[in-house]
Amino acid sequence: MSGLSFNDVVAHMKNAGFVYQGSEIYGGLSNTWDFGPLGIELKDNIKKAWWKRFIHEDPNNVGIQSAILMNPEVWVASGHVGGFSDPLMDCKECKSRFRADQLIEEATHNEVSAAGMSNEEMEQFIKDHDITCPKCGAKNFTGIRQFNLMFKTYQGVLEDAKNTIYLRPETAQGIFVNFKNVQRSMRKKIPFGIGQIGKSFRNEITPGNFIFRTREFEQMELEFFCKPGTDKEWFDYYCKACVQFLKDLGLDEKNIRLRAHDPEELAHYSNGTSDIEYNFHDPIGWGELWGIADRTDFDLKAHQEHSKQSLEYFDPQTNEKYIPYVIEPSVGVERLILAVMSEAYEIEHLEKEDRTVLKLHPFLAPYKVAILPLSKKLKEPAMDVFKQLCDVCSCTYDETGSIGKRYRRQDAIGTPFCVTVDFDTQEDQCVTIRDRDTMEQVRIPLTELETYITKRIQL
Amino acid sequence: MSGLSFNDVVAHMKNAGFVYQGSEIYGGLSNTWDFGPLGIELKDNIKKAWWKRFIHEDPNNVGIQSAILMNPEVWVASGHVGGFSDPLMDCKECKSRFRADQLIEEATHNEVSAAGMSNEEMEQFIKDHDITCPKCGAKNFTGIRQFNLMFKTYQGVLEDAKNTIYLRPETAQGIFVNFKNVQRSMRKKIPFGIGQIGKSFRNEITPGNFIFRTREFEQMELEFFCKPGTDKEWFDYYCKACVQFLKDLGLDEKNIRLRAHDPEELAHYSNGTSDIEYNFHDPIGWGELWGIADRTDFDLKAHQEHSKQSLEYFDPQTNEKYIPYVIEPSVGVERLILAVMSEAYEIEHLEKEDRTVLKLHPFLAPYKVAILPLSKKLKEPAMDVFKQLCDVCSCTYDETGSIGKRYRRQDAIGTPFCVTVDFDTQEDQCVTIRDRDTMEQVRIPLTELETYITKRIQL
Repeated sequence: MSGLSFNDVVAHMKNAGFVYQGSEIYGGLSNTWDFGPLGIELKDNIKKAWWKRFIHEDPNNVGIQSAILMNPEVWVASGHVGGFSDPLMDCKECKSRFRADQLIEEATHNEVSAAGMSNEEMEQFIKDHDITCPKCGAKNFTGIRQFNLMFKTYQGVLEDAKNTIYLRPETAQGIFVNFKNVQRSMRKKIPFGIGQIGKSFRNEITPGNFIFRTREFEQMELEFFCKPGTDKEWFDYYCKACVQFLKDLGLDEKNIRLRAHDPEELAHYSNGTSDIEYNFHDPIGWGELWGIADRTDFDLKAHQEHSKQSLEYFDPQTNEKYIPYVIEPSVGVERLILAVMSEAYEIEHLEKEDRTVLKLHPFLAPYKVAILPLSKKLKEPAMDVFKQLCDVCSCTYDETGSIGKRYRRQDAIGTPFCVTVDFDTQEDQCVTIRDRDTMEQVRIPLTELETYITKRIQL
Repeated sequence: MSGLSFNDVVAHMKNAGFVYQGSEIYGGLSNTWDFGPLGIELKDNIKKAWWKRFIHEDPNNVGIQSAILMNPEVWVASGHVGGFSDPLMDCKECKSRFRADQLIEEATHNEVSAAGMSNEEMEQFIKDHDITCPKCGAKNFTGIRQFNLMFKTYQGVLEDAKNTIYLRPETAQGIFVNFKNVQRSMRKKIPFGIGQIGKSFRNEITPGNFIFRTREFEQMELEFFCKPGTDKEWFDYYCKACVQFLKDLGLDEKNIRLRAHDPEELAHYSNGTSDIEYNFHDPIGWGELWGIADRTDFDLKAHQEHSKQSLEYFDPQTNEKYIPYVIEPSVGVERLILAVMSEAYEIEHLEKEDRTVLKLHPFLAPYKVAILPLSKKLKEPAMDVFKQLCDVCSCTYDETGSIGKRYRRQDAIGTPFCVTVDFDTQEDQCVTIRDRDTMEQVRIPLTELETYITKRIQL
């Protein structure tokens, strides 16, 4: 439990079939990762948990899925074409490339934040404080140039400006441009939310830390539209709801903190932003997990002006017309995977041995149940149990090795229940269920198995 | 039921909140579509159904999710860089652009297939048969040029050949390059399958027919690896399994047919390919829904040669080493959505009125249950029912309009069950459940509600 590092968690995820290097047989492609059989089950379960909590369980909210490829005017209106860029500097000696803000923050061990600095201020700061190239040690940087983080491509036959489109850098804008469509077709009344889960792409200069920051990643974003003046109340509501969700997923309260942005960190249009930070294992420590922002009417107003389409809401109760304010809780799926894996991964010292155990919430576990025949001769009745249970949850089947060894395998991938089919099963119509965390075993009738499991894997 | 056209289905999907034009407030972006609140629920349910059937219920199979951005060598090895292109021709008069193969097939009303023709043969055919420009009627085409269908982008700061990467045109290659990773980490034995659901991108010159052919689309692909010589057997197995799956989703047998490719349609490496075609409403008619291909060892061999990594499988039982053959059932999510919507959409003539009803399989329905309080005063007990049920399935709540009107709304979006909370509910602890298809009503105790619904929404 203690003494584990971030690298231990990463190593386990790579070895156990959660995550592989992307395009590995070709030497990889910088900073891309593929989710293996266990990783995709965990990822899907995290997405299902979010959708259940923030869409299905809330009668105010609905979901959408907008296209990754959007009309480029969307990104002009949102400010991404003009402003979504990193301040880049090259070391003239070794030709390495850096983000100026990160140079400053790393050189000062995060004691100085570059968030509010202009390019000129950053250049000056780097000179004044004799910041050197982290690669070669030289003090010979170019000036700052802005590098846009959107991936560009061309739709149609000609590669020209007219056909330039972008891979979306966030899912949020797909919600804003559909605000009216959703409100009208679903006859929604303010307040209501629209959620979306999907891939986004950012051509980061310095991605890294395994799946913590990747160029291709998956977001879960909710845009909650409310009446101006009620926004602070909803902002608080969603800060609490997101923290509660994390606790319900099994994250320990002491590893979660809510950090309000300082005024100088805030975008000019924001009425407030808080980050939920999670205490990842060393050397990462506290890192941003979830951003909750009160974005006022900035986004809808920008699209209304740029598209010349009214995005006002007419309130049928008060006969008022207004552009709603929006609260945006936004979280990355991959980062949430890292948090639940960090929390769940343990090496337990038992009397006779150590065991690796992933104490994932059963709802998140890749497999809920492992079906283990005591002998290969029992394959047939064991497969009957498999067929019965896989109708209600994801199961795995394992017949090789001793039962003890098979238990350990399932512990290491987080399977909460092992069901053993033995030679008595045919006679007494019972199986043994072994609990991952307590390692206790109970014998129950086959007829009660489905209910037993179903009850214990709910979120 | 009868007399409905494809356009009627499309119109319903647009009006009811299933699909919106992408980036609509900016005049759209050619051939992109956004899934609205009902569309994304239907889409997710189709994906869940596929995953359940082909991954969870089959102990041989596992899933993965590989990155959309891959090392470009993947696409060299797979043949996409060299060969994944359309034969383009321009009309010199009106500057319209066409696919030569489509020009031929449309001009001959599909009586001639251009699939086996070389560029020279197509040019000659067009000349010999006096095929004219469908736009302006001229007979003045340019020669054929090959246009690669992969979207190109650049990773990193420099837009040069070294940094050129592609948006994947199919999910299959992400499975092939992970064959060894999955086999090893999951200790899989041949035969076994690896499935993936995810977005792919093709820069089609002539996309169209609503979501039937789009540049950005979602695939559900299974690569089933088997021993050479057993491939025909597995090919037949998966042809049957896919047809059965479609029937289980509610598609009528008479609207499904399996069409084996003619020898001249087959890729040189293929041992056989069959398309499952669905009879869409006019004017589409029979259209390709699902392709099942026996691809032999072509893909793994190509990657083994190009990557210099062994992709051989060692059979522990026979001590043989071989490159497995692969059976590939591949289906597009959007096309399957169109098929189930075409099948489900009906206008029923009742005694007093017509009703629009979507007879979707309950597993696929966006909402399984609509909670309807007989009066707005009953909101509280109705919300209690909502909270109880949304733990097991997606629900919607509607309190506006007469009950009859609310039933019709739910019929039109495919909700299989309406649960009415009335003034007796508090006393007798019962609610009325109304069935979408039979329109029959039964009164049942609240304590039995969850079980009643759960049983009826299984696939």
